[in-house]
Amino acid sequence: MTGLFITIEGPDGSGKSTQMVRLCHLLEQLGFSVVQTREPGGTVIADKIRGLLLDPLHCEMTSRTEALLYMAARAQHTAQLIRPALAAGAVVISDRFADSSLVYQGVARGLPQIDLVWLNRFAAEGLTPDLTLLLDGTVERLAERLAERGHRDRLDREGITFHQRVRQGFLELAASEPGRIRVIEADRDIESVWKDIKACVMDFLMKRGRSHAVADQ
Amino acid sequence: MTGLFITIEGPDGSGKSTQMVRLCHLLEQLGFSVVQTREPGGTVIADKIRGLLLDPLHCEMTSRTEALLYMAARAQHTAQLIRPALAAGAVVISDRFADSSLVYQGVARGLPQIDLVWLNRFAAEGLTPDLTLLLDGTVERLAERLAERGHRDRLDREGITFHQRVRQGFLELAASEPGRIRVIEADRDIESVWKDIKACVMDFLMKRGRSHAVADQ
Repeated sequence: MTGLFITIEGPDGSGKSTQMVRLCHLLEQLGFSVVQTREPGGTVIADKIRGLLLDPLHCEMTSRTEALLYMAARAQHTAQLIRPALAAGAVVISDRFADSSLVYQGVARGLPQIDLVWLNRFAAEGLTPDLTLLLDGTVERLAERLAERGHRDRLDREGITFHQRVRQGFLELAASEPGRIRVIEADRDIESVWKDIKACVMDFLMKRGRSHAVADQ
Repeated sequence: MTGLFITIEGPDGSGKSTQMVRLCHLLEQLGFSVVQTREPGGTVIADKIRGLLLDPLHCEMTSRTEALLYMAARAQHTAQLIRPALAAGAVVISDRFADSSLVYQGVARGLPQIDLVWLNRFAAEGLTPDLTLLLDGTVERLAERLAERGHRDRLDREGITFHQRVRQGFLELAASEPGRIRVIEADRDIESVWKDIKACVMDFLMKRGRSHAVADQ
């Protein structure tokens, strides 16, 4: 039996964590064994790499170093946690995965997209999510949410341009892979967003079930 | 003015550190500004990555994670220390650089050579050494030296095969780039090895001086 790999993408403040808890709960209720994880992180070594990446003292870190560290964390996360869980038949739900590198290190930091695609393939040994939920909202609403959380300083003028590039990057990625990436309109109350996510995942599971049934005939 | 980038390669126990001290001293006496460094390391961030790589508790680290961490350290080392020093006209001497990844992660750990060549180019943004001194000796002599240093356990039966692969990998690399990589026979007393290194570096400087003189005409 092979599991299912679902990722949730979108900027900080888009509501990923809240919706992820609900999604895990739903899938467990449906009888799946669920593994909830995040990037960078998910294993002891990847969490230590996360520590290097998020240390505010490391302001001299170059874009290439940053990209390679995210990839190193992804390599360990994929080999040590995600693949074994999938092989055991679990549903793995990850808060961020390879798409985040394409958008943050590629679109936002300016590294060539083709290099990041290569690095993702090398790090994850070709593993791609079965389904990706992209939580999309306006940068203005994102700023309000981050302000509510006390991150009032995070969206200054430069920040807004950065977040607009990130949003645009995610939307272009979704447009290029409509079969895998589903865009969820996140500028709404939690219940409305969840209703869409639930419908989207149920639709995916039904289609997958049908295709597996056809394959089994 | 552009500096000069010299690397010293070879296994642990081949005498790299001892010869490096002498080489730095010689070049300083000749009037060069010399920057002595090593991989993984050379900057604060790269040294922290070194800490992750060399932590004996990290036995679950995969070959890909290891390769990507070496590359992340190289990216930071190259951008933050090596390139600025070369731009300032210094001679940079590094104990290990990209060749070590080709041999240790490639030949010894079995990652595809073509992937490591790609990663080296991405990490160092195409920087290659002007001259590489490869200290080569038999695995038996290496075992004796490591035993003298108290590393008696490091070369068991499996270790010998590993070190034979490393030696072979370095020699094949040297054969493929004879213009850049000079093989120094290291199974001799310190003075004899040093005499060869000195002759090799002086020869390189003379030829380089002549080609620069021609270019200036």
